[in-house]
Amino acid sequence: MTDPDILSAIRFDAAGLVPAIAQQHDTGEVLMMAWMNREAVQETLATHRVCYFSRSRNALWRKGETSGQVQHLKDLRIDCDGDTLLLLVDQQGVACHTGRRNCFFRAVRDGALEEIAAPLVAPETLYGSHPHG
Amino acid sequence: MTDPDILSAIRFDAAGLVPAIAQQHDTGEVLMMAWMNREAVQETLATHRVCYFSRSRNALWRKGETSGQVQHLKDLRIDCDGDTLLLLVDQQGVACHTGRRNCFFRAVRDGALEEIAAPLVAPETLYGSHPHG
Repeated sequence: MTDPDILSAIRFDAAGLVPAIAQQHDTGEVLMMAWMNREAVQETLATHRVCYFSRSRNALWRKGETSGQVQHLKDLRIDCDGDTLLLLVDQQGVACHTGRRNCFFRAVRDGALEEIAAPLVAPETLYGSHPHG
Repeated sequence: MTDPDILSAIRFDAAGLVPAIAQQHDTGEVLMMAWMNREAVQETLATHRVCYFSRSRNALWRKGETSGQVQHLKDLRIDCDGDTLLLLVDQQGVACHTGRRNCFFRAVRDGALEEIAAPLVAPETLYGSHPHG
């Protein structure tokens, strides 16, 4: 059971969600940002496998359940205001549904957007008909 | 002027905001998460000094304008869905209004919350009457 102090330190928004940043624990690479509800936080702390809340599917989203690209939780941190979480994880494979290691592959270069990373895996290899996982 | 393609790649939410993660460009330390509106993105790209939008003050928040703890923009990245920004910055001093280097100083240890970093600066040294800056 999750310590009630942990949950009460988190300020969930009006929709009951809190943003969670996933960072690769050893390299420091910021992998992705997604959302968690109370239940997702509890499950993640209980299982040490990261579980988000999918706003598009309106359901718990056990990262990697479709794609196999699981995130193992190494550490969970809460910010000063309690309205953002930082998850230190060990990412198995790739974090992004496009097949890239992380989701932040578009950067501003000379005033324009440029892709700075190519997919490591074809999205079709990761998914059947599911857009995320 | 900001390339219109950059702004159109960002999916601002119903309130006109997008979450922005600030990461120290050379060490990989995740410093904080805050929000930007369209104007904040434009100003940040134009000046290379990070400007957020303060939801509590409902105004542009030029990071460091009160405290002196400025963030210099090194790179701006947009995620796959366009709904989160990653700012690679050079943080002058401390990012957190508590005087800590970063905002994520509370971690789950043995099932309970523990502070894992102490303030480097007294908040009173950073601010007059302003809670953030």
